[in-house]
Amino acid sequence: MSDMNGAQALIRTLVDCGVDTCFMNPGTSEMHFVAALDHVPEMRGILALFEGVATGAADGYARMAGKPASVLLHLGPGLGNGLANLHNARKGNVPVVNIVGDHATYHKAYDAQLESDIETVAHNVSSWIRWGTTPDAVGGDAADAVAAAMGPPGQVATLILPADTSWLPGGEVGAPKPLQERMPVDSGAVDELAALLAGGAKCTLLIGGSSLREDGLVAASRAANHTGAKLLSETFPTRLERGAGLPPIERLAYLAEFAQHQLGETEHLILVDAKAPVSFFAYPGKASYLVPEGCEVHVLAGPGDDAIGALQALAAAVGAPADAATLQPAHRPDLPTGPLTADGVCSALGALLPEGAIVSDEGNTSGLFAPMHTAGAPRHDWLTLTGGAIGQGLPVALGAAVACPDRKVVALGSDGSALYTIQALWTMAREDLDVVTIIFNNGSYAVLNMELNRVGAEAPGPKAKEMLDLHRPDLDFVAIAGGLGVKATRATTAEEFVDQLRAAFAERGPRLIEAIVPSVI
Amino acid sequence: MSDMNGAQALIRTLVDCGVDTCFMNPGTSEMHFVAALDHVPEMRGILALFEGVATGAADGYARMAGKPASVLLHLGPGLGNGLANLHNARKGNVPVVNIVGDHATYHKAYDAQLESDIETVAHNVSSWIRWGTTPDAVGGDAADAVAAAMGPPGQVATLILPADTSWLPGGEVGAPKPLQERMPVDSGAVDELAALLAGGAKCTLLIGGSSLREDGLVAASRAANHTGAKLLSETFPTRLERGAGLPPIERLAYLAEFAQHQLGETEHLILVDAKAPVSFFAYPGKASYLVPEGCEVHVLAGPGDDAIGALQALAAAVGAPADAATLQPAHRPDLPTGPLTADGVCSALGALLPEGAIVSDEGNTSGLFAPMHTAGAPRHDWLTLTGGAIGQGLPVALGAAVACPDRKVVALGSDGSALYTIQALWTMAREDLDVVTIIFNNGSYAVLNMELNRVGAEAPGPKAKEMLDLHRPDLDFVAIAGGLGVKATRATTAEEFVDQLRAAFAERGPRLIEAIVPSVI
Repeated sequence: MSDMNGAQALIRTLVDCGVDTCFMNPGTSEMHFVAALDHVPEMRGILALFEGVATGAADGYARMAGKPASVLLHLGPGLGNGLANLHNARKGNVPVVNIVGDHATYHKAYDAQLESDIETVAHNVSSWIRWGTTPDAVGGDAADAVAAAMGPPGQVATLILPADTSWLPGGEVGAPKPLQERMPVDSGAVDELAALLAGGAKCTLLIGGSSLREDGLVAASRAANHTGAKLLSETFPTRLERGAGLPPIERLAYLAEFAQHQLGETEHLILVDAKAPVSFFAYPGKASYLVPEGCEVHVLAGPGDDAIGALQALAAAVGAPADAATLQPAHRPDLPTGPLTADGVCSALGALLPEGAIVSDEGNTSGLFAPMHTAGAPRHDWLTLTGGAIGQGLPVALGAAVACPDRKVVALGSDGSALYTIQALWTMAREDLDVVTIIFNNGSYAVLNMELNRVGAEAPGPKAKEMLDLHRPDLDFVAIAGGLGVKATRATTAEEFVDQLRAAFAERGPRLIEAIVPSVI
Repeated sequence: MSDMNGAQALIRTLVDCGVDTCFMNPGTSEMHFVAALDHVPEMRGILALFEGVATGAADGYARMAGKPASVLLHLGPGLGNGLANLHNARKGNVPVVNIVGDHATYHKAYDAQLESDIETVAHNVSSWIRWGTTPDAVGGDAADAVAAAMGPPGQVATLILPADTSWLPGGEVGAPKPLQERMPVDSGAVDELAALLAGGAKCTLLIGGSSLREDGLVAASRAANHTGAKLLSETFPTRLERGAGLPPIERLAYLAEFAQHQLGETEHLILVDAKAPVSFFAYPGKASYLVPEGCEVHVLAGPGDDAIGALQALAAAVGAPADAATLQPAHRPDLPTGPLTADGVCSALGALLPEGAIVSDEGNTSGLFAPMHTAGAPRHDWLTLTGGAIGQGLPVALGAAVACPDRKVVALGSDGSALYTIQALWTMAREDLDVVTIIFNNGSYAVLNMELNRVGAEAPGPKAKEMLDLHRPDLDFVAIAGGLGVKATRATTAEEFVDQLRAAFAERGPRLIEAIVPSVI
């Protein structure tokens, strides 16, 4: 029997499968996993002060690394704390190897304080769930978990790890599983849709997921330009490559009425790793399903398919020339001056964004104009709130910075949403990550002020308004960031903001800028 | 059809059932609930910046109010964020009316961004789960939820509330359900155990849950004193009344080896609203079940039974005089001097604790001596970490302060655990709650340093140690508290701490004291 314990075999297997980063918030039942880190030098352990930071970081890491990180959580409550950002990863088809420590197998019967039904919670985010119950099998379980997480499409694979599986000897390292290729799209389907596009009907190509990278965007732009089709991206891309020199793409709007306007008179909607558009929330008397009446929906590629290959085949089938794509010209907005506004912050970002930046966008209402003002900035990646569970922006930025240490990362956060996982700042400081966090502080859950009207609730009374107000007391993000070890400054004028952003971009390491802005709503 | 919408009927029903406080972190799908707050003036809405604060506050509120609060959460991710503290409430048999907003019923089919399986998550904490699907029935659903939450024993009752149930007219207010009484304990069982106690065998009375209030403690102490039985309380009481003039009670130790020592040669273990003792975690080669071999276990009262009545009947049956209880003499430790230690903090607390205080104890390793040093302080309540999911201490204190506005509340927190739900400070400031938060800052997850050895992991290497260290960077709780609107000071000597604690107790309103202490481990 091997001397290696289960935890050592597990970590060695993960590394052999290419998973060499673990974002963690461990407890007693995970102590043998923690001790085993020193046996596998290739595995990097990164501590988070809250589980939602660990899971969101794993999401951001995988979006940029193209492979999963692992997370290590402590029993059912730890999984609960990490659930919201696993939900976001699930909705974005992002691979995550989600390891949840549990009591020793024989201890579960005693219903100790931390005993709970882990599996029922895991079902909310994982269709792949396994209990790693013996040290000799846990390596194989881990290899299966990595393969399941990778998909395609990517998913959250949950491996529940009892403490005795970790500590007992007899661990066996699992062999990496062959990675599954994306499914090539049938050429008949391509030809059929090419004929549709070429036939003069009003077509919209709605592309998302894996297609929003340079090659997919170029092929989609070629096909659309050559046939007169409209080109849109899904509302909340997992990872969108954009900026000067890349095909620009209009995103389907968050607000249903705007999305309906964008889809306009579309007769054929062609989906490429994107879902048929639905309203983010339901509103009384308004449509949930946003596809225009009478419009036919076609699927060129699903989430597990080779969407880029399909788009390239489509562009070829319609006879689009190689240079038919629209390319975004380089353009920077003017630097803002005067009183600071959310729009000014976004202009400054567009004016100063460094080449190769990664933007994690949870600016919500205040960040509304950020995509517009950065459209012509040097090439960069844009990561969005895929599942709608706020508290994702800072952790995703953290993970992206771990995956891409040579690129500047920008976290756009808002006062309300940043507070869910504000502990991310501490890990940014600890790991000296090159992240500039910009917090729009408008003193309210502004999006809810808007939604309160949009859902048709009567004019809000004082108690209702109170529930959306963040002024009493005012949040001081400079103080909070300082307390968590990140250098921070506050800007109340456009000039101050520009100076602070320039300084933050000129140096390496975590910085936070609190932008005091009026609500845009 | 009633003009009232579902949300209005729901809130009116809750108030009619005595549930007049709602801790909330709402989103778009809950906006009609929020708007309805202004229609029912008796309902107090209290905003939290994070769901774990809302659920923990509901727990603390119910422990002190003796009736549930409601919480309002936003879909599956919001429930996930609130799950750890609902777990703690579940383990403490604390009533909580857990309202989880959901998409409109007809919208769920579209799998929008925030769609997920709420019910599977709810199963982790609730055995009572219901979908409130029509406005005419939702009042009745709410009344049932309150009754289910109240038990006895108390529990987390989850009512899932689709947005259209809230906004549609036709709401009907539900009638309060009659409350269920605690089950009286059969007198035959009492007599049998009385004979056992009187018969000279080595007996231990292990009491918990609802019995840890004055009347239960007095009766238990009488019975134990009169028969020579040993008296212990469960390790983590939901609410323990203690201090000068009340019977003192030894708590079963957290560490299994100490608990085994306490149970010693017990031949008969009599459980009163307490579980047979098990180890908090499993450790290689150590027992999970802590009842001594050959010891017989008897149940006098279960969690839904009238435990206090049973103890009083038992005391009478053994013939214990009315004045046979041990009463704790008034005693205060000396004020500490010199370098600040965790023990010194606990001494100062014992020396200065005001009459009628409520202590929410999540001091973990640093708080180890707090019960000892406060034993003879004026009468107070002690609330502990019932489910082991850290991040409970500050929210429970918040809720207790809402329930008991005329009593001083002390939150004992630790650097590691306080960071899970630090957003509680903001709500304390917003509601001007009379809570003094004491943070033991020892720069580590000290309990895990201990556990790492106890689980038998080999000598930890540098990577393992790094995962338990909170020094890089140091956390500055004074800055964090200031950023969240709570006045804070830092103490590095015993004299400073005493001065700051005295000042905090002399004023009303939220204060935080950061105590820089060496680890006790």
